[in-house]
This record gives sequence, structure tokens and C-alpha cells, in this order.
Amino acid sequence: MEQRPIRLGVVGLGRAFTLMLPTFLGDERIELVAACDPRDEARAQFACEFKVPVYPSVVELVQDAAVEAVYIASPHQFHAEQTRVAAAHGKHVLVEKPMALTLAECDAMIADCQAAGVHLIVGHCHSFDTPYLQARRIIDTGDVGRVRMIHALNFTDFLYRPRRPEELKTEEGGGVVFSQAAHQVDVVRLMAGSRATHVRAVLGSWDPARPTEGAYSALLWFDDGVYASLTYSGYAHFDSDEWCNWTGEMGNAKGDDYGLARRRLSKVQSAAEEARLKSAGTYGGPSYQPPKHERLASDRQHQHFGPVIVSCERGDIRPMPDAVWVYGDESRQRHPLKPPGVPRFEVIDELHAALLSGQRPIHNGEWARSTLEVCLALLQSAREQRDVSLEHQVSLRQ
Amino acid sequence: MEQRPIRLGVVGLGRAFTLMLPTFLGDERIELVAACDPRDEARAQFACEFKVPVYPSVVELVQDAAVEAVYIASPHQFHAEQTRVAAAHGKHVLVEKPMALTLAECDAMIADCQAAGVHLIVGHCHSFDTPYLQARRIIDTGDVGRVRMIHALNFTDFLYRPRRPEELKTEEGGGVVFSQAAHQVDVVRLMAGSRATHVRAVLGSWDPARPTEGAYSALLWFDDGVYASLTYSGYAHFDSDEWCNWTGEMGNAKGDDYGLARRRLSKVQSAAEEARLKSAGTYGGPSYQPPKHERLASDRQHQHFGPVIVSCERGDIRPMPDAVWVYGDESRQRHPLKPPGVPRFEVIDELHAALLSGQRPIHNGEWARSTLEVCLALLQSAREQRDVSLEHQVSLRQ
Ligand SMILES: NC(=O)c1ccc[n+]([C@@H]2O[C@H](COP(=O)([O-])OP(=O)(O)OC[C@H]3O[C@@H](n4cnc5c(N)ncnc54)[C@H](O)[C@@H]3O)[C@@H](O)[C@H]2O)c1
Ligand SMILES: NC(=O)c1ccc[n+]([C@@H]2O[C@H](COP(=O)([O-])OP(=O)(O)OC[C@H]3O[C@@H](n4cnc5c(N)ncnc54)[C@H](O)[C@@H]3O)[C@@H](O)[C@H]2O)c1
Repeated sequence: MEQRPIRLGVVGLGRAFTLMLPTFLGDERIELVAACDPRDEARAQFACEFKVPVYPSVVELVQDAAVEAVYIASPHQFHAEQTRVAAAHGKHVLVEKPMALTLAECDAMIADCQAAGVHLIVGHCHSFDTPYLQARRIIDTGDVGRVRMIHALNFTDFLYRPRRPEELKTEEGGGVVFSQAAHQVDVVRLMAGSRATHVRAVLGSWDPARPTEGAYSALLWFDDGVYASLTYSGYAHFDSDEWCNWTGEMGNAKGDDYGLARRRLSKVQSAAEEARLKSAGTYGGPSYQPPKHERLASDRQHQHFGPVIVSCERGDIRPMPDAVWVYGDESRQRHPLKPPGVPRFEVIDELHAALLSGQRPIHNGEWARSTLEVCLALLQSAREQRDVSLEHQVSLRQ
Repeated sequence: MEQRPIRLGVVGLGRAFTLMLPTFLGDERIELVAACDPRDEARAQFACEFKVPVYPSVVELVQDAAVEAVYIASPHQFHAEQTRVAAAHGKHVLVEKPMALTLAECDAMIADCQAAGVHLIVGHCHSFDTPYLQARRIIDTGDVGRVRMIHALNFTDFLYRPRRPEELKTEEGGGVVFSQAAHQVDVVRLMAGSRATHVRAVLGSWDPARPTEGAYSALLWFDDGVYASLTYSGYAHFDSDEWCNWTGEMGNAKGDDYGLARRRLSKVQSAAEEARLKSAGTYGGPSYQPPKHERLASDRQHQHFGPVIVSCERGDIRPMPDAVWVYGDESRQRHPLKPPGVPRFEVIDELHAALLSGQRPIHNGEWARSTLEVCLALLQSAREQRDVSLEHQVSLRQ
């Protein structure tokens, strides 16, 4: 495989970007060559830090011949249109989850990239995390038989982190289904491997001050009678990272800062102040803290999205931040995972393999559209109080 | 309250009885005065150990004037008829879970006991366990607001313990729904407190050698939009007691005997041999081991039925074998539980209070019938692939 770096232009310099920044900085296969964001301060900081051109919007960015691929990390509602613009200019697309807000948008994105002959990858998503990919490889050996049942749960303080107003409005893509089920469903689909068939779900929405759904539970069926049960709470006080060795979503060792998110938010008086708080801590903002590479690297384990147990015919598989446990009929084995040198290198693995060797990515448009379909069906099932069939699902092997 | 012991006659000297035996021996409020069982060796051992009359069947036992209440611990299918016989002779009834196999049987049991003016209590069931009762008391204070969501899971080797043939046939009351959902649903109903409205469920049945359902996942709705998600696997290799301080269902500290149940069973050649194995280890059998009081008492914590998280408006509650954790908005508190002097004393609390002070038990016939209705609906929902409404539910306050 050719080893030159991919020349990446960033679209949207917010929280998602800062979460990917350690990857872009640490992985030699990436070169940041441009960025765009409507916020002046974000552009200023990017220009100062990377000495590359910055633009107010994607329309200018895609004219930049140095840009070979874009990383779209703007709010959900821009993903489809920005993908269209990028593809039309021959740029490969790495777009954040959720892929978009509607299946029609997904269809257009897939068609636009196909017509332009560019790759479309959706991520980072936690199904890129090595523990899940490694669990999938172990399943693929056939040693523990077929997957029969999956259990996934995650209890976080998601809803109490500072938010933009639309992040608290479901109809604008807010709430935990678009943002968090997008991860959990993707992980569960990776573990199942086969096509999902239907879903039954229920939403929890119990904080009038944050009027979107902050929790859900769902049953998800797959071909061959395989099923999964998913539970997420973004209202949580109990932290399920306790069941992941006290390793946080980002692979970080968790300190004892009980209730921090709620404590911070309790000092905020209005939605406008909250948006300002979020923006102040964002890239370019006055209270922005750059990722702490040294500290992160030393005690870093793999990223994850909460406890997952995959029950197979002859054993259970439990992906953990530092190992994959295989509990077999006779013995249990711990398959240790090498700590990640660079976080989220798996995203670059897929991007690099696609762009430089033409390998079909796992997390392509069809794959991600399937996940969005499940998320939309989850909302519909809760609203209509019935099972919802899934019509556009692909399997891992497609 | 009067403090004399209750004069109890035991109906069925099998595994359930031996699990209650430490309670009967340790709790001064119980006096064992008679027993019946069709097995000669069980009767012989009981007569020898307690120097009291033994009978081949319940019909003779209930004629014994010394018997004031019966503990019915025979297989499910006998519960209804034996309750009828006991009530007809003026005996109070403590009957094991599941209460019966059909709602019609439950109705008859309730009517029979009411007509005879005797108390009917269903248990032991794990919703008697102090961690759950204490969690309910904390909820009742209102400090954490209303219950919104409940998550309950349990991964055990249930299906690989030695079984009688009918325990592996769903139509005869076998499988994990009748035996294990009976606990989990009851615990979840206690946590919700309100009436359940409908259920959607899926069953897992993936070991042709044990042809009943060994796993399930379910969504259960309650009044006011409260919902619960329940997952159980009796096929498990992963042991969720890891998330309960490595304390087993019986409150025992768990040693490292990974895979023991499957290892033992793998040496068994036939269903007949398996039934013999079960019976040999049962009370009166050649390999029966009496409960080890001394060892048990020292490291005993409370019994439990797997991890449960109760999400309330202003906090999560987590009943654990040694404490109830209350994770509030500002701080988390551990409410330590006094280790149980006698296991399952809570069953005797309710029995004693009912018989000697006329207190209405929580675990009465109407309560237990509601749980059986949910279990039956769980089977129906999985079979018919749809939500099933619940029509006979009572709340905790009734
Ligand atoms: N994979 C992950 O771990 C992860 C984490 C966070 C967010 N995300 C995803 O990333 C996306 C962005 O979320 P976020 O939390 O970073 O939001 P954010 O509000 O923190 O950042 C959004 C950024 O995009 C900029 N922006 C707004 N409109 C734009 C436009 N038209 N063109 C270019 N830039 C624009 C904003 O100024 C801001 O800098 C969402 O789709 C979200 O789901 C993914
Ligand atoms: N609460 C708990 O923790 C718990 C645990 C195990 C079983 N149980 C319940 O207890 C009941 C019995 O289950 P088990 O596991 O003890 O079964 P088991 O097979 O171990 O024991 C059943 C006993 O009943 C006897 N018996 C059979 N027919 C009888 C009859 N007509 N009259 C009197 N005795 C009769 C058998 O000889 C045997 O001794 C079931 O309803 C089960 O769900 C509850």
C-alpha cells in the first residue's frame, strides 16, 4: 500500500473535530491542509496552528486543489449538502455520524459520491473501536458458533453537557437517538453481522428543562432470529463505565469527578448562555483546552461505547477497552489488546485503505444508512407504539 | 406483635425447600411440624432430622392438626391444586414462585384462600430481597423523584444445572420465563410500583439439547410512561454477578469455579441420568449436602437477582447485595445494608406479619398473579411478534 498522507480539509471545527484532532496530529497518514468554519475565532486558531488556508464555508474549501478529502464535522443538518458539494468537486468524504437526518439525504449522498467516483466513509463512530472490530474477528473464526443475542447498555451524562439549542430538539436532530443510538446501533449491527429486520423501542423524556429524549430502550431483530436489546440513558447518575474498568468513552482513565456535568450546567442561566459556554470551550474559543497528548497517551485504553455482551452458541464475547474476553464452554480467555498509539487510528485505517488501495470500507454509505434507518425506526416505534420493519438494511458482508 | 413461631408443614422436599431450609432452621419464628413428598428417602431424612410426622402427599399432611400453614415447594404444576387442598383445611399458604401455570389457576387459588379465610403468600421470590425492598423505601421517600426507567439484566448458567425433563419443556412450565422471569419481573414491578400496561418480548432458544427458551429480552411498560428493559440469559458464560461484587444469587461470595455447571453436565449421558443426578443431590438423596451454616453466615451478603438500575427523575438507584447506592444530582451515597443474620428472613417477616397481625402481604395472590400474567404475555409476545396488553395488573399500593 502506498504510504503517503491523505490531504484532508476539515469542515466544522467544533467538538467532533477536537475529538479527532489527536488522531490527525498523531497519525502520519493524515495531513491537515485546510479548514472551514463560519466562526472567525475557529478559523483564526486553525490558520495559526497549521499555517494552512482557512475558509468561511465548504464552498470555498472544496475549490482548494490541495484538499483531497474532506472531514465533515458540522452539525447533522449540513452533512448531506456538504457531501454533495465535496463530491461534486472530486473530494473523498469522511462524514461524522449520524450520516444525515433522513434516508432521502443518505440516498443522495451515496448517489452523489458514486457519480463522482469518490469514497464515502461515515465516522468516527464507536463501531470503529478496536474492541468491537476484534470481537467481530473472533466471531468470524467460528470458534464460538453463531451470534444469538446481543446486550448493549450505556449510562452517561450526555444530556447535561453544554448544548446548542437544536441539540435539544429531536425534530432538528437533537436528542440521544440521533447522536448516541447512532453509535450503539452501529456497534450492535457490527456484532450481529447480519441484516436487521425490525425494531421495537421506547423513549424516555423526563427533564422538561432539556425537552428531547434523553434515554431509550429497544429490541432489535436480525435475520435468523438473532436479537439485541439496547438501553441508553443520557440522564444517568450511575456511570456504566464502572463496568468497563472505569475507562471512559475516549479510552481515558476516569477520575472521581462525580456529577461534574450537572454541577457545571447548574450555573448556567439560559439557553443562550449555554450555547456561549459550549462555544467558549470549542476550538478557537477563550476557554478551549487543546488535547493533552502526553497524559492521554500513557494511560490510554481503547475507546468504547459502554458494556456489550455478545452471546453466541458456544460462548459469550465481551469487548472491553483493554481486552476482548471470550467466555467459552470450558474456559474463559482474555485476548489483550495493544493500547492504541493514536486514538481512533481505525478511522484512518479505513480511509487510507479506501483512498490508496481502493478497499471497500466497512463504514460506507450503505452501512451508515442502515444505522440511520434503525434510529429513525426507533423514534417511529416509540411514537406509534408498534414494531417497525426495516427495509434498507445491509449486512456486514453486503 | 405476638412472637410465637408459625407451625409450618412443608409440601415438596426438593431444591426450593433446601434453599429455604437455612431460613427455617435459623429463624425462630418458624417451627417445622410436618412434611410430605412422594420420595421415600426425602421423607425418611425429614423424619430423622426433625422428629415430626411425614406423609406421602398433601392430602394426609393437611389433616395434621399441628400444621398451621403450608410451604408448597412442589413443581409448578401442583401449586394450584395443593393450595386448594390446604385452604380447604384452613391452612395458610406460602407457595413457591411461579404461583401457577395459568391465570385461571391463580384466580382459583385466590378465591379458595379468600373463601377459607387463610392468607396466601407467594415466595420466596427475589423481590423479597432486602436490597430491592430498601430501594423501594428510598423511592417512597420521594427524594429522587418519580421512577422513569428500569434496567434489569442477569446472565447465569441456569439452563445447565441438572433438570427434571419437564423443566426443559415450556408447555409444562419449563424454561427461563416461568422460573426466572418470575423473579426478574417481580423485582422490576416492585421497583416501578405502578401497574404494568403492556409488554413486547423476544425469546432465545438456541441449544437443541435443552429444547426450551433459555434467554429473553423484554420491554415492559407501566402507567405514566414508565418503562423497563429486562434481559436474561440462562445460557451465559459471562457471569453478571461480576457486577454485583462477585456475590452470587444466594448472597454467597463466588469462588472461581468457571464453567462448573457445564462441566458437570457434560458427563451426563441421558435425560434419565440427569434426573437421577438432580434427585441424588436433592434432600434425602445420596449426594445431598446440607446447607453449611457456619461458612455461609460469615461471608453472606443479601440475595439478589442480577444488576438492576432504577432511573428516577433526580437520581439513579442501584440495589446491591451489601448496599443500596443512590446516585443523586449532586452526590452519590452508599446506604449500607446490615448483612442478613438469616437468609430470606424477609419471607418470614411477611408470613409472620400476615398470620399474627393480619397485615396485608406485598407478595399476595393478586401481586403474584400480575407477575405470572407478565410472564405469560412475554411468551405470547414472542410467539405472536407483537405487543401484548396486560389486563389483570395491580400496583404495589393496589
Ligand atoms: N464521533 C464522535 O465521537 C462525535 C462527537 C461529537 C460530535 N459528533 C458529530 O459531529 C457533528 C458536529 O457535532 P459537534 O458536537 O462537533 O458540534 P459543535 O457545535 O461542537 O461543532 C460544530 C462546528 O461546526 C461549525 N459549523 C456550523 N455550521 C457550519 C457549516 N455550515 N459549515 C461548516 N462548519 C459549520 C460550528 O461553528 C462549530 O465549530 C455532529 O454530526 C455530531 O453528531 C461526533
Ligand atoms: N425461590 C427460589 O429460589 C426457588 C428455587 C428453586 C425452585 N423454586 C420453585 O420451587 C418449586 C419446586 O422446584 P424445585 O427446583 O425445588 O424442584 P425439585 O424437583 O428440586 O423438587 C421438587 C420436590 O417436590 C416433590 N414432589 C413432586 N411431586 C410432588 C407432590 N405432588 N407433592 C409434594 N411433593 C412433590 C419432589 O419429589 C421433589 O422433592 C418450583 O415451583 C420452582 O419454581 C424456587
